Amino acid sequence: MTLPTLSDIKAAHKRIKPFIHRTPVLTSQQLNRIFDCRLFFKCENFQKVGAFKFRGATNAVMSLNKSQKKNGVVTHSSGNHAAALALAASMNDTKAFIVMPENAPSVKKDAVAGYGAIITFCKPTLESRERTCRSIMEKEGATLVHPYDNFNVICGQGTASLELLEDHNDLDIIVAPIGGGGLMSGTSTCAKEIREKITVIGAEPLNANDAWKSFRTGVLTPSVNPLTIADGLLTSLSELTFSIIRRNVDDIFTAKEESIISSMMMVWQRMKIIIEPSSATVLAVIKENPDFFRGKNVGLIISGGNVDLKKLPF
Amino acid sequence: MTLPTLSDIKAAHKRIKPFIHRTPVLTSQQLNRIFDCRLFFKCENFQKVGAFKFRGATNAVMSLNKSQKKNGVVTHSSGNHAAALALAASMNDTKAFIVMPENAPSVKKDAVAGYGAIITFCKPTLESRERTCRSIMEKEGATLVHPYDNFNVICGQGTASLELLEDHNDLDIIVAPIGGGGLMSGTSTCAKEIREKITVIGAEPLNANDAWKSFRTGVLTPSVNPLTIADGLLTSLSELTFSIIRRNVDDIFTAKEESIISSMMMVWQRMKIIIEPSSATVLAVIKENPDFFRGKNVGLIISGGNVDLKKLPF
Repeated sequence: MTLPTLSDIKAAHKRIKPFIHRTPVLTSQQLNRIFDCRLFFKCENFQKVGAFKFRGATNAVMSLNKSQKKNGVVTHSSGNHAAALALAASMNDTKAFIVMPENAPSVKKDAVAGYGAIITFCKPTLESRERTCRSIMEKEGATLVHPYDNFNVICGQGTASLELLEDHNDLDIIVAPIGGGGLMSGTSTCAKEIREKITVIGAEPLNANDAWKSFRTGVLTPSVNPLTIADGLLTSLSELTFSIIRRNVDDIFTAKEESIISSMMMVWQRMKIIIEPSSATVLAVIKENPDFFRGKNVGLIISGGNVDLKKLPF
Repeated sequence: MTLPTLSDIKAAHKRIKPFIHRTPVLTSQQLNRIFDCRLFFKCENFQKVGAFKFRGATNAVMSLNKSQKKNGVVTHSSGNHAAALALAASMNDTKAFIVMPENAPSVKKDAVAGYGAIITFCKPTLESRERTCRSIMEKEGATLVHPYDNFNVICGQGTASLELLEDHNDLDIIVAPIGGGGLMSGTSTCAKEIREKITVIGAEPLNANDAWKSFRTGVLTPSVNPLTIADGLLTSLSELTFSIIRRNVDDIFTAKEESIISSMMMVWQRMKIIIEPSSATVLAVIKENPDFFRGKNVGLIISGGNVDLKKLPF
C-alpha cells in the first residue's frame, strides 16, 4: 500500500490548478469573538460543483494514461463525487459512467446528467451498486474512480489544505470532516509534512462515529446505519484512508446533531455563506471543545455547500 | 437642495475606509451562461451588519462636528439602518438613539441592543415614530440620521459602486435596488460621473413600484401599503432622492414576487452566498428583461444578506 506524500499532493496541485477554483479563505470577527480563537475558513463550498470533491476527481481523471482516457471513468455515488467526476471528465474530454440508485433525488440525477455523464441506475443496495459498476468496467473498459479509496483522489483532496497553508503559514490546528477519509487523508498528509508542529483534528458526527471508533480501538470499524444530517459523512474508512489517518491525525472529535445544525445556522447567519451540514461539523467540534481551541489559529476545511433548500433543518 | 457629487462620494470613501469592509466582487460562470451576460456582484451582504447601510451610517456619524458627536445620533428604523447606525456610533464613541416600533421582531431588537444603542419603543405608526424621534432630538440634542433622506448617508452608500467601478472599469450597466432611494442616489451619482456612457438601472418590486411610478410620471408618488417579500424596499422616495434619481437613472425596471424569490434561490444554490430578497430584486429584473442585458458587462449591487432563516419563502 503506497501512501501519498506532500510531493504527490504538490504534483496534483500543479496538474489540476488550471481547472479548479483557488477558493478564498474567509474570516469572521464575530465568530472569532464567540469562540475566542482565530478561525480561517477554507471555502470549498465555492469550489466547482460546490464541493472539494472536484479536486480529487479532476486529479484522478488527469492522471489517466491515453488508453484509459479513451475508455472513460466509472463510479457509484449519488452525491458530490458523482457530479465532480462527471464535470472533471467532461472538461478533460473523457466519458464518465455514473452508477446511481434508482431512488436518488431527481435534483442529483439532473445535476450529474447536466454535466454530460452516462447514468446507469441500479437497486439502492451496495451489492447492486458494486455489481453494476463492475459490469461497466468490464464492458466499457472504464477505470474505477472510488470516491476516497484512491491514491489520486486523496492527493487531489490534499490540495485544499496546501492552498490554505500557503495563505496562512501560522496555523496551530487544522480541522477537516471525516466521512470515508479521503479529505482527511489528503489534509493530514499535507499539513504534517508542511508544518510538523500542527495539530490535525478530524470532525465526525457522533451519530456516524465509525472513524472515531476505529481510531480509538486501532481496528477498522465500519459504519452501521448511521443517521445524521451530515449526509456527506455516512461512509466508512477504507484500509488506505485508515492507515493514513492513524499515522497523521492527532485526534478525532465527534459532534452532536444539534451542534452541527446550530453551527451551520451560525455560519449562514453571521458569514452569509451557505455551507452543508458535513462542513458545519468542523465548527461544531470547536463549539463542543472550547478549551482545546481557545487562543489558537485554527484552519477549517469547509467541504461544500450543496444543500436542498426545500429541506432545511431550521 | 444640494446634490452630492463624485467628489463628495470620494471624500466619504476616504473617511469611512478604515471602518468598513472592502467587500468582494463575485462572479459565477453558471449564472453568466444562464443569463448570457457577464455579471459582477458587489457583495454588500459581506459588509459589517450584513448590509450596505453601514457605509452611509458611518459617513453620517463621522461627518458630525464635535458638539453634535457629544449628543449622539437618532433614527427611527427597525431594519438594517438601525443596526448600522448603532454600530457606527459605537465605533466612533458616540451615542445612538434608535426608535423602534414595539412590535419589531425580537431578533432585530437584540441586534440593535447588542451594538450598544439606546432603544426607545413607540407605537407601530409613522406618526408615533416621528413624534418619538423629534422628542429625543429635543431632549438629547441628538442629530437625526434619516435612513436615506440625508446627504451624508447618500454619499456613504455611493462608495459601494465607487469600489465596484475601481475593480471593474468596463461595466456597460449598473443595477441597484430602489427602496427610499439612498443607495440608488449614491450609485447613480458615482457611476454617471465616473463613466458617462454607463446605463444605470433601478430595480424595484412590482408590488412596491412607487419609484417606477414617480419616475414615469415625473411626480413624486409615495408607496401605499406595499406588499412584497423585499422588506428593505417598502419605503418611498424623498424629494432629495427623487431629484437625484430623475437626473442620473436611465430607467427603473420592476420585478414580480416569483422572480425575486426564484432569483434569490438561484444565487443561494449556485453561488453559495446568502442574499436578502431586496438584493435578489436586481437579478430578478435581469431575468425578466433578458434582451436588455444580453452580452453586456453588468454590475449588481447586492445590498445585504439579513434574512430570517426560520421564515424562508421556499
